[in-house]
Amino acid sequence: MKPSLFQKCLAEFFGTLVLVLMGCGSAVLAGSHVGFLGIAFAFGLSVVGMAYAIGHISGCHINPAITISMWVTRKLPAADTLGYVVAQIAGGIVGAGILYVIASGHADYSLATNGLGQNGVGDGSPDHYPLASGLIAEVVFTCIFLLVVHGSTSKNNTTPIAGLGIGLTLTLIHIVGIPVTGVSVNPARSIGPALFVGGEALKDLWVFIVAPIAGGILGGIIWKMVDTWKKV
Amino acid sequence: MKPSLFQKCLAEFFGTLVLVLMGCGSAVLAGSHVGFLGIAFAFGLSVVGMAYAIGHISGCHINPAITISMWVTRKLPAADTLGYVVAQIAGGIVGAGILYVIASGHADYSLATNGLGQNGVGDGSPDHYPLASGLIAEVVFTCIFLLVVHGSTSKNNTTPIAGLGIGLTLTLIHIVGIPVTGVSVNPARSIGPALFVGGEALKDLWVFIVAPIAGGILGGIIWKMVDTWKKV
Amino acid sequence: MKPSLFQKCLAEFFGTLVLVLMGCGSAVLAGSHVGFLGIAFAFGLSVVGMAYAIGHISGCHINPAITISMWVTRKLPAADTLGYVVAQIAGGIVGAGILYVIASGHADYSLATNGLGQNGVGDGSPDHYPLASGLIAEVVFTCIFLLVVHGSTSKNNTTPIAGLGIGLTLTLIHIVGIPVTGVSVNPARSIGPALFVGGEALKDLWVFIVAPIAGGILGGIIWKMVDTWKKV
Amino acid sequence: MKPSLFQKCLAEFFGTLVLVLMGCGSAVLAGSHVGFLGIAFAFGLSVVGMAYAIGHISGCHINPAITISMWVTRKLPAADTLGYVVAQIAGGIVGAGILYVIASGHADYSLATNGLGQNGVGDGSPDHYPLASGLIAEVVFTCIFLLVVHGSTSKNNTTPIAGLGIGLTLTLIHIVGIPVTGVSVNPARSIGPALFVGGEALKDLWVFIVAPIAGGILGGIIWKMVDTWKKV
Repeated sequence: MKPSLFQKCLAEFFGTLVLVLMGCGSAVLAGSHVGFLGIAFAFGLSVVGMAYAIGHISGCHINPAITISMWVTRKLPAADTLGYVVAQIAGGIVGAGILYVIASGHADYSLATNGLGQNGVGDGSPDHYPLASGLIAEVVFTCIFLLVVHGSTSKNNTTPIAGLGIGLTLTLIHIVGIPVTGVSVNPARSIGPALFVGGEALKDLWVFIVAPIAGGILGGIIWKMVDTWKKV
Repeated sequence: MKPSLFQKCLAEFFGTLVLVLMGCGSAVLAGSHVGFLGIAFAFGLSVVGMAYAIGHISGCHINPAITISMWVTRKLPAADTLGYVVAQIAGGIVGAGILYVIASGHADYSLATNGLGQNGVGDGSPDHYPLASGLIAEVVFTCIFLLVVHGSTSKNNTTPIAGLGIGLTLTLIHIVGIPVTGVSVNPARSIGPALFVGGEALKDLWVFIVAPIAGGILGGIIWKMVDTWKKV
Repeated sequence: MKPSLFQKCLAEFFGTLVLVLMGCGSAVLAGSHVGFLGIAFAFGLSVVGMAYAIGHISGCHINPAITISMWVTRKLPAADTLGYVVAQIAGGIVGAGILYVIASGHADYSLATNGLGQNGVGDGSPDHYPLASGLIAEVVFTCIFLLVVHGSTSKNNTTPIAGLGIGLTLTLIHIVGIPVTGVSVNPARSIGPALFVGGEALKDLWVFIVAPIAGGILGGIIWKMVDTWKKV
Repeated sequence: MKPSLFQKCLAEFFGTLVLVLMGCGSAVLAGSHVGFLGIAFAFGLSVVGMAYAIGHISGCHINPAITISMWVTRKLPAADTLGYVVAQIAGGIVGAGILYVIASGHADYSLATNGLGQNGVGDGSPDHYPLASGLIAEVVFTCIFLLVVHGSTSKNNTTPIAGLGIGLTLTLIHIVGIPVTGVSVNPARSIGPALFVGGEALKDLWVFIVAPIAGGILGGIIWKMVDTWKKV
C-alpha cells in the first residue's frame, strides 16, 4: 500500500503549515521570552515533529529547496515536485494566517511593529547584515542543510533517525544565522509571512527564493560527489 | 504476556503524576531560573522519560486528549478509554499535590501569589491573551500534537523513537504557546493545578478541557485523511 | 565474550568520574554563563555520553541508587553491586579532584566561596529550601529516575535508545530541582564534592545518601507493579 | 560498494568546514544572542548533522584527534590517517574563511575586535584561565570525548545512534569548557581561525594541537582497557 499523490501533497501542506505557524510563532508570540536559542529550537523541532508525523507519507520535505534538490538529483518525479511545491507554499500561507489570527488577539500586537517572523536583509535583517552577507549565508546554509538531508536518507545510510538529525541541523542553522537574515533556507517559510507583512519583506523575498534553491542544488551536487560509490 | 488493564491504568496514573509534578514544577520551583525555554524542555522531557518508562505498558498517553482521540479513531476500546482518563486525572491531582508540598516548604511561597503552574486566559494568561486567542491556540496546538502522536505510532511508520519525537513536539508547543495560555493541550495537566489554585484557574478550566479534546479529535481526522492508504 | 567484573567496575569508575567532573564542572566553571538550564543539560548529557561509551560494558549505572535498586530487584548479583558502588564513589571523588585542579587555576577561585557543585539543604540549598522539602524532592526525583531506568531497560521494552531517554530524564530532574537541593539523586555525585568542600556540605551529606537510595528502591517497587506481566 | 579514499577525504573536508563555519559562526555571528549554551549546542549539533550526512562515508571524524586515536588503536590505516588529517585542516581553514566573508559584511565587524571563534589561554581565555588549566582541561575533555567515540562505535556496541551521542557529548564539553579555553578538543577547529586572527591565537595554537592529540590517545588507551573482552 502506498499513499496517493493527493495524500502526499496534503501531508506537505499540513507539515509546512506547522513549520511556519510554530517556527515563526515562536518569534512572534514568545521571542522576547525564549530568545534566538528558543526560536532556533522551535524551527528545528517543528521539522522533528513533522518528520515523525508525515515522513513515512511524503518524506516530509515541507521545503521547496529540498523538493527541487530531490528532483534535480532524480529522486522525485516532476509531477510530485510540482504538487509538493504548490502544497508547501499554500501551507506556509495558511500557517502564517493562523499565526496572525492568534497574535492579533493581543492588545499590543500590530503587523507593522511586530511582524510575522518574516526574513530580510539590510534594514530587514535582525542585526542589519547587508544583501551580500544574506545571500551568501542563505546559499551556504541551505547547501549544508541539503548535504544532511541527502546524506541521512541515502541508500548507503541506514540510520533510523534521519528526521531527528535533519531537524537538529535546522536548529543549528538558526542558532548561527538568525542575526543575519532570520534564516529562511526555505522559500515556503518566507513567502507566507512576506505576503502578510508586505513592504520590505516582499521586496527582499526574491533572496529567500533564489538563494535556498541555489544552495539546495549545490548541496545535492556535493552529496553526489561523495556518496556515489563505484563497485570495488 | 500482556499487562492487565489495572497495570495500564496504574502506569497512566504515575505517568501523568510525573508530567504534572515535573512540568508544573519547573514553572513553580525553577521558572525564574530557567525561563520559558527551560519550562518547555521540562514538559517535553517528562513525556520523553515516561514514554521510555511506560510506553511499552500503556502506550504512555498521560493525556485524556490523546486517549479520547485514540478511542475516536478506534485504536482503543471504550473500557480502556474510561480507565485511562480517570487514572490520568487522578495522577494529575496527586502530582499537583506533591508539588504543592515541596513548594510550600519555601518561606516565601504562597498558592495565591506563586500559583501551581495553572493554565489561564485573559488575566490568567502569562502575556494576557484573550479567550479567543487561547481557545484557537489550544485547539490548533493539540491538533498538531495529535498529528504527531498518530503519525509516529501509525502502522505505516516504523520509527523506533516515537517517544522522543512526541516529547520534543510538546517542547515545541510550549516554546510557542506558554505566553498565550501557559499551554495545556491536556485536560489532566490543567485539572490538578486548577483544583488547588481555585478562583480564575477553576473558572477558565473548561477551556482546557474542551479545546484539547476538540483539537485532539481534529488531529485524528486529519491524520486519517493522509495516513489511510488504498491498495495500489 | 563478556567484560570481566574488573572491567565493569573500571567502566563505572570512569563514568562516574565524568559525571561529577562535567556535571559539577558546568556549575563551577560555567554556571554564571549557562544558568541552571545549561547545568541541567550538562548532567543529563554526561549520562547520555557515558551510556553510549560504557553502557554495553557495565550498563552505565554510575550511580549507587541505580545499582542498589538493580540489586534489590534481583537484576544484579551482590558481588557486582558492591564493586560497582565502591568504583562509583571512587570515581566521584577523583572527578571532583580533577575539577578542583582546573578551577583552582583561576585567580578568583576559592573552595569556600565558589564550592565544587556540592548539594545542600537549608543554607546550602540554592534557593534556601528546608530539609523536609529537600528530603521529599530527592526521594520523589530518584523514584521517577528509577522508574525510567527500570522501564526503559525492561525485557518487555525494546527501545534502542534507553541511554538517551535516561540522560534526558536526568536533565529534566535538574531543570526542576536545582533550586531545591542542587539535585543529587546519586550518592556518588554528592560524596566527592562534599569531601572537598567539607563543613555544611558534609553535614548535609546523609540526605543525599539516604534519600536517593530510598527513592531508588521505591522506584523499583513501583516498576515491578506495572511491568511484571502475567501470561494471558 | 565502498567510497574511495578521495571521497572519504572530501567528506572529511566538507564536514570539518561545516563544524568550523557553524561552531565558530555561532560565537562570532550570534554569541551575544544565544550565549555559551547556544554556542555549545551549535558545536554539538554540527557533529550530529555531519554524522548523519557523511558518517556512512568516512566515519565523520572531522577532527585529527579522533583520526589519530583511531590510527593508534589500529582501526584506521596510515594512508587514510594522513589523508583525513590534511583534509580536516584544509576544511577548517576554508570554513573559517567563509565565516570571515559573512561576518565582515557587518559594518561593525573587525577581526581584531570580534575574532573568529579562536581558542586561547591566559588573556586569550574567555574567563582568563592560565595555561596549566587550559592544558589539563583540553587533555581531559578530549580523553572523555574519545572514550565516547570509541565506546559508541565499538564492535561490542550496537547502538544505532552513535552520531547523536557523540555530538551531544561535544555539546556537554562546550557547556563546561568554553570559559576555560573556548574549547578545542580538535586541532583542525583551532588552526583555521588562528591563521586568520594571528597574534595571540597563533602563539597559543600549540596547546590546541598537542593537548587534544594527547587526550585522544589517552582516551583510546582507557577504552582498550575496558572494552577488550576475553572469551568466557
